[in-house]
Amino acid sequence: MSIFTRDQSVTFGDCDPAGIVYYPNYYRWMDGTFHEYLRAVSSGHSGVCAQLGARGLGLMESKLAFRSPAVDGTVLRYAIEGITWANKSFDITYTAHDGDRLVLEGMERRGIFIEKDGRLRAGETAPLRALLGL
Amino acid sequence: MSIFTRDQSVTFGDCDPAGIVYYPNYYRWMDGTFHEYLRAVSSGHSGVCAQLGARGLGLMESKLAFRSPAVDGTVLRYAIEGITWANKSFDITYTAHDGDRLVLEGMERRGIFIEKDGRLRAGETAPLRALLGL
Amino acid sequence: MSIFTRDQSVTFGDCDPAGIVYYPNYYRWMDGTFHEYLRAVSSGHSGVCAQLGARGLGLMESKLAFRSPAVDGTVLRYAIEGITWANKSFDITYTAHDGDRLVLEGMERRGIFIEKDGRLRAGETAPLRALLGL
Amino acid sequence: MSIFTRDQSVTFGDCDPAGIVYYPNYYRWMDGTFHEYLRAVSSGHSGVCAQLGARGLGLMESKLAFRSPAVDGTVLRYAIEGITWANKSFDITYTAHDGDRLVLEGMERRGIFIEKDGRLRAGETAPLRALLGL
Repeated sequence: MSIFTRDQSVTFGDCDPAGIVYYPNYYRWMDGTFHEYLRAVSSGHSGVCAQLGARGLGLMESKLAFRSPAVDGTVLRYAIEGITWANKSFDITYTAHDGDRLVLEGMERRGIFIEKDGRLRAGETAPLRALLGL
Repeated sequence: MSIFTRDQSVTFGDCDPAGIVYYPNYYRWMDGTFHEYLRAVSSGHSGVCAQLGARGLGLMESKLAFRSPAVDGTVLRYAIEGITWANKSFDITYTAHDGDRLVLEGMERRGIFIEKDGRLRAGETAPLRALLGL
Repeated sequence: MSIFTRDQSVTFGDCDPAGIVYYPNYYRWMDGTFHEYLRAVSSGHSGVCAQLGARGLGLMESKLAFRSPAVDGTVLRYAIEGITWANKSFDITYTAHDGDRLVLEGMERRGIFIEKDGRLRAGETAPLRALLGL
Repeated sequence: MSIFTRDQSVTFGDCDPAGIVYYPNYYRWMDGTFHEYLRAVSSGHSGVCAQLGARGLGLMESKLAFRSPAVDGTVLRYAIEGITWANKSFDITYTAHDGDRLVLEGMERRGIFIEKDGRLRAGETAPLRALLGL
């Protein structure tokens, strides 16, 4: 069962000359899903960062597999399927569906970036995990 | 009274290093509001173009006045406030509010672009006006 | 004569299903031209803001007239044609050409946003004008 | 040695409230690098598609590892480091550097999408490989 879902309508300008979604937009919406999740279960990205003394819950890696196309008018249901925790990073897995049809499978690896001596470093994930109740 | 309204959530990545919305995004959402309007009252942009023999309901001009800032977490209510019809173009006026607070006032001047002898020309607006019931 | 010019290549993903540039991208590039100008003649946006005690050289209004289309492969030459100074705002006029062909005419009205008592206000433009040597 | 390189300037609006590049933009520039490569060594995406009877050289997967941050003013050198060919897909590997500093490592898996009986299918890669002289 998904942890969180969010609907995203695809509009004309999101699509390229082939008439299908220009793929960086899929990443925008994946990132936006994570931020809406933080807002839904906690105080949003800025609130969470303030509580953790962090500059951002930033990206280390991301990827998407494009399983079928989406076009102008498609309503994509983005879902966070799970979060896997390591000491200093966490992997968020995503899907996006158009009804029953799988459109995307994705992953973001994020860290909790803390500024120390003018440099950004990845901090421990345990405080975030506690804050999200996971 | 507005002709059409649509809510748009602002997310972290829509904002710039000053923490406020990067302004080209406001245009994306204004354009998207027009496309959602076409979908709500008719058959969407591609359906309307097919009925009119047009390549697109394209832009001649657009503008926005930024009345107050929007940030991560703002829910903007975009509204089409009116459409003014000329023979070969039409002006769509917009506002966007955060609750009672005015964030944007905007305008798009669009034409019905028809391909003729390999060139795009603006066609008569009357058929579109009839199709939209305005 | 132009104050500043900058070339911008149009790529496939900048274009919409009609095969022409999705218009919010034109605003991205207009804004980017202003920022490159600040970098070329001064210390860039962040440097200028630091010197002026400002949070940003933000937008009050912007507009574009779309005179002819640009497509995948077009190289647009953006130009700042002039800056008109008022006490608390300044208007930057732009064009963009593909060779001799006029593609865009645009304007940005910006202010120097200063934070005071937790609110952003437009400050005097004279210090910026001096800093840019205009 | 890289197959192809292209410089991309980072501007203010490409960055998020943390002051670093909003990551979907890195994908825009990776995709744009592939399209500029097609233009440099052949007739560009639309020309190549016309020669191959394809609708697009579309994405199956993409990923990026974010090795270090880029900010307003960074000039990123995107490079195509290699292309690995399978029968019905090909993997393009990328890096992006700021001078000597590695910023990104990425991959796109693309197919040659051919429309057949109203559906898009991945065609043989051999004709593209021949066309690119690889």
